[in-house]
Amino acid sequence: MTDTVIDLNSDLGEGFGVWPLTDDEALLDVVTSANVACGFHAGDPSVLRRVTERAAERGVVIGAQVGYRDLAGFGRRFIDMDPRELVNDVIYQIAALDGFARIAGSRVRYVKPHGALYNAVVHHTAQAEAVVEAIRRYDPELPVLGLPDSELLRLAGEAGITTVPESFADRAYTPEGRLVSRREPGAVVHEADEVVKRTVRMATEGTVTAVDGSVVAVRPRSLCLHGDTEGAVDLARRVREGLLEAGVTIRPFA
Amino acid sequence: MTDTVIDLNSDLGEGFGVWPLTDDEALLDVVTSANVACGFHAGDPSVLRRVTERAAERGVVIGAQVGYRDLAGFGRRFIDMDPRELVNDVIYQIAALDGFARIAGSRVRYVKPHGALYNAVVHHTAQAEAVVEAIRRYDPELPVLGLPDSELLRLAGEAGITTVPESFADRAYTPEGRLVSRREPGAVVHEADEVVKRTVRMATEGTVTAVDGSVVAVRPRSLCLHGDTEGAVDLARRVREGLLEAGVTIRPFA
Amino acid sequence: MTDTVIDLNSDLGEGFGVWPLTDDEALLDVVTSANVACGFHAGDPSVLRRVTERAAERGVVIGAQVGYRDLAGFGRRFIDMDPRELVNDVIYQIAALDGFARIAGSRVRYVKPHGALYNAVVHHTAQAEAVVEAIRRYDPELPVLGLPDSELLRLAGEAGITTVPESFADRAYTPEGRLVSRREPGAVVHEADEVVKRTVRMATEGTVTAVDGSVVAVRPRSLCLHGDTEGAVDLARRVREGLLEAGVTIRPFA
Amino acid sequence: MTDTVIDLNSDLGEGFGVWPLTDDEALLDVVTSANVACGFHAGDPSVLRRVTERAAERGVVIGAQVGYRDLAGFGRRFIDMDPRELVNDVIYQIAALDGFARIAGSRVRYVKPHGALYNAVVHHTAQAEAVVEAIRRYDPELPVLGLPDSELLRLAGEAGITTVPESFADRAYTPEGRLVSRREPGAVVHEADEVVKRTVRMATEGTVTAVDGSVVAVRPRSLCLHGDTEGAVDLARRVREGLLEAGVTIRPFA
Repeated sequence: MTDTVIDLNSDLGEGFGVWPLTDDEALLDVVTSANVACGFHAGDPSVLRRVTERAAERGVVIGAQVGYRDLAGFGRRFIDMDPRELVNDVIYQIAALDGFARIAGSRVRYVKPHGALYNAVVHHTAQAEAVVEAIRRYDPELPVLGLPDSELLRLAGEAGITTVPESFADRAYTPEGRLVSRREPGAVVHEADEVVKRTVRMATEGTVTAVDGSVVAVRPRSLCLHGDTEGAVDLARRVREGLLEAGVTIRPFA
Repeated sequence: MTDTVIDLNSDLGEGFGVWPLTDDEALLDVVTSANVACGFHAGDPSVLRRVTERAAERGVVIGAQVGYRDLAGFGRRFIDMDPRELVNDVIYQIAALDGFARIAGSRVRYVKPHGALYNAVVHHTAQAEAVVEAIRRYDPELPVLGLPDSELLRLAGEAGITTVPESFADRAYTPEGRLVSRREPGAVVHEADEVVKRTVRMATEGTVTAVDGSVVAVRPRSLCLHGDTEGAVDLARRVREGLLEAGVTIRPFA
Repeated sequence: MTDTVIDLNSDLGEGFGVWPLTDDEALLDVVTSANVACGFHAGDPSVLRRVTERAAERGVVIGAQVGYRDLAGFGRRFIDMDPRELVNDVIYQIAALDGFARIAGSRVRYVKPHGALYNAVVHHTAQAEAVVEAIRRYDPELPVLGLPDSELLRLAGEAGITTVPESFADRAYTPEGRLVSRREPGAVVHEADEVVKRTVRMATEGTVTAVDGSVVAVRPRSLCLHGDTEGAVDLARRVREGLLEAGVTIRPFA
Repeated sequence: MTDTVIDLNSDLGEGFGVWPLTDDEALLDVVTSANVACGFHAGDPSVLRRVTERAAERGVVIGAQVGYRDLAGFGRRFIDMDPRELVNDVIYQIAALDGFARIAGSRVRYVKPHGALYNAVVHHTAQAEAVVEAIRRYDPELPVLGLPDSELLRLAGEAGITTVPESFADRAYTPEGRLVSRREPGAVVHEADEVVKRTVRMATEGTVTAVDGSVVAVRPRSLCLHGDTEGAVDLARRVREGLLEAGVTIRPFA
């Protein structure tokens, strides 16, 4: 038994209009932090309303999952936009979601970039600065959730913003502690027992076995669970159960 | 000389991306209330940022100019949408603009529907209720600006929301005090001296000469000036000067 | 046994970006005419490409399922747009789809309005005229598929365009041969055997039992099968089998 | 006097909804080839209809100005999209415009990428291949207009597509014959007489003086005139007159 504390986050509210995507109801029973899409890559206002209400009812913390304005590409395509415009696109999204969070009796309590923006701000300094600037302007008390060793977390930290590193239970790691690119074979761990085992080890020991067999340190404050693939909800439930059985306390970071 | 007080409002921030529309800088020197587009019919996040900052600097009051999600139609086409979805679309727009207003050191201080939604809520009870419900949920202290004798103002009043009736200096009126439809000839008063004269009379006497020559009562708390037609800014300036010369105090209602 | 001929049509290609909707692969094995969404209410270019290729491979006839520009509302919300703009919106959609159909070695062979536009052109003369005008301009040889007794089919007929009336196997009918509004109870027939039985009778006898028990005439050249609800594909398959067993020839109208 | 032949092309139809941009009427009296926006970065269906009709009336050749799906960024932001999706986005745009061109009694007769896509296909092989593949699929007889020494023209040439190199009268050139980046000072030649002089020399001698004073070879078959900046139409007219006075024949390449 340990006194380890971990947060579970997942992307929610990623439907749009007639098109559902994430199983928001089921995921809200598993996670402690909901990364809610804000309308630019997914999520229409009625989705935002419903997800923020359900999250608030269950005490799940609401985060703004901000992305590029790209419904057709689901925010998964890098857009080389003017960082000054990105600042404003991010503020717009946080503010819109915060309106619904307030109505639900809660607030937006953190920010997490989505998709291609998430990947870009690992190394794209100007876009990472833009996200940091948006948070600084909107509410510098909002923590930012992202990859350790990313430009985003480095710059956020310098700006006095709380940074929350996360790990991925179902992703392979390089010996340097980076994620193996999805374009390479073996990037995703599919076997459920293996995912649960890795999760528990990440939470309790702060380590993961890299693709070359070496043990690397990861000290996540949050674990990201995927909610948009088949079997995702079942896997998320098993991860949660596995953590609880290992004596890990599941608690939001915000 | 009178001690009459009037507000001047105009639509601002109606550009989108590379396309400008309203002469926001010039209008901000004329009006006391800026109806700022929120992104659904016009206005991208960078427009919202700039207009709210400039408005706040000048002490111009910021209002949320909410419309249908219809960039291609500029919100000028009635959309027969589910009122429950309209509630959420309106909340989304107010909240997004409010984020920028806060950053600029101000707040959204009123709501005014735009275009086809403005016209719909004159008589469409369910959509008027939706706008009222959105305000009630987001912030019941926000006044709503609209046509007297509209369902919107009636329902808002019943819900305890402050209602602000407005008149149009450059529009012809029926003997019943309604606007002559734009589809009819003579709906718009083009002659600048005439517009100024009508404005002063609306503000000081609370009356306007209708199309049949009869004198009808209008008691606007605000006058709407158009900013998207050629010569609009010049006309707006002349209206402002005419009111000041007539001893009218120009002051925001909010 | 009869020598009755009927066409089976269904909406296809109604996904968008990351969001699937219709089970296009399965439906293409059932229907003879595919109403393919063209990008305004659903359907991105890659969806259009894939569905037109698959349809052409199977010899399924491709029709342009044209709708309002309204991704957020899936084209299910009436938009009171300028009919002259509607003409151009419809042309744009037909032409875009036709480009993919040509590449697939086929052509767009008919036009069917979608959702709220489908309902509007039953009675809205100006919008029905706009759809007719679009077809007349783009290719007056294209038949139009719609409700009998609709303004659309009346005006199309007057313009010399081939009109194809359709019936709905899973919808209740009034004694006047109209569809019972979806807002009323019993509007949709859910029981599969009943749907199959009604279908066969529509095709072979040209009649349907209305909600009051009276028998009314419907003489469809095409039957519309729904593809966007759970169990829809199974039901569509059963309808097809039921028709074949009853000796009905299933053949496209175009 | 020479027997030199040159084409003048310009971007047209770049308004959207209520927002105008290019002075289409005036430019159609100057150019021989109109790069018409197709709706993804600018241009709604009613714009396409009007511009193609006016172009056809005047005998101006219609080209498809294809761009990224990015109204908010006017197609000026690089999008790192899947090349297979780009193929389909380009086909969709060409086909939609071609529908209007046919209705106007003409056809789309060439393709020119816009904005960030134009810049990307200079060096981005996969996106250049996607544009070539789209043309090859839609109509391999369509020439492609672009920068000499670009991946686009190289790959198009290899695919047997006619390539049309263009020069820019108002842009500074490097000694290598490349355009000076707009981010550098002196990238744009503003002085009208100078622009006209350079144009005539490009057309008649096939040379331009680079920023370092050296003379470099450019052998454009087409000259691109800008239509979206103040004074652009006047400058375009002067360029046309200058060319005619120098005995250059202005004739479309397609």
